[in-house]
Amino acid sequence: MEQPHDPVAAEAGAGAVAAGEAYIIRPLDLADLSKGFCELLAQLSPSPPLSEEAFRARFAELAALGADHLVLVAEEAATGRLAAAGAMLVERKFIRRCGLVGHLEDVVVDAAARGRGLGERLVRRLVEHARGRGCYKVILNCTTELKGFYAKCGFEEKNVQMGLYF
Amino acid sequence: MEQPHDPVAAEAGAGAVAAGEAYIIRPLDLADLSKGFCELLAQLSPSPPLSEEAFRARFAELAALGADHLVLVAEEAATGRLAAAGAMLVERKFIRRCGLVGHLEDVVVDAAARGRGLGERLVRRLVEHARGRGCYKVILNCTTELKGFYAKCGFEEKNVQMGLYF
Repeated sequence: MEQPHDPVAAEAGAGAVAAGEAYIIRPLDLADLSKGFCELLAQLSPSPPLSEEAFRARFAELAALGADHLVLVAEEAATGRLAAAGAMLVERKFIRRCGLVGHLEDVVVDAAARGRGLGERLVRRLVEHARGRGCYKVILNCTTELKGFYAKCGFEEKNVQMGLYF
Repeated sequence: MEQPHDPVAAEAGAGAVAAGEAYIIRPLDLADLSKGFCELLAQLSPSPPLSEEAFRARFAELAALGADHLVLVAEEAATGRLAAAGAMLVERKFIRRCGLVGHLEDVVVDAAARGRGLGERLVRRLVEHARGRGCYKVILNCTTELKGFYAKCGFEEKNVQMGLYF
């Protein structure tokens, strides 16, 4: 016999799912400018607030790269605010039979949301994207202090990162 | 009085220029597959020979990125063979007011052409491209042994590079 539809039970069910998933990890979307995206990035690197126009323009440029660029964010279900973000850029090379390399960039977790495994979940999702895209490796640069976090995510120390600032 | 044209002198002049520039640095082109491009890359990383079709397809994908991707090569004037190569990938970010970062990748100098400053010339040309494109920095990853070379090119050690291989 078919169960009669019970809107209260259905709502409770949806609530239970939301409670189980305190954070929803999903691709960046255009509404995220008003959900604290720049404030979150500012915890990583200087990121003054972007105008709607500047955000939309960069969003469109990155969307044009298709699967070669993915920004994931973690939205806190209870508040609708962003608690983490990270990006994967796929580089097309000639070496290794025109191999692909994933560059993990700009990973940040809101200070109030740290210590709950959210960063690792986000990093693993981005790594899975690179694997699915056919990359032979993913690389990242980090400070010495973050080596332990990335080791937990499956990374090994490989080389030295050097920089030249204009 | 106008000088009479002297083809011998003109040729000697052209020869003098060629002698001064033993290597011509220029963007990669489609003819470079037959000028030793894959053999050169194989000195950096496993790079089995590419078919004409695979090379052209990747070349077209990278060309579609416009100024966001540049491969420079150094061609030996005397032989027409490639003696060095390197690439600059421009990453579009949201941080730093939608800042741009140049990634210096796959720099290689033929073993027989090392020790003549060719690598540094090539790197500086790629860095100038990134500067002209508006990047706020250029970053690269290298082994400890190459830190001195890149320091000579203007880079400073910044962070740790970590990798995850599939």
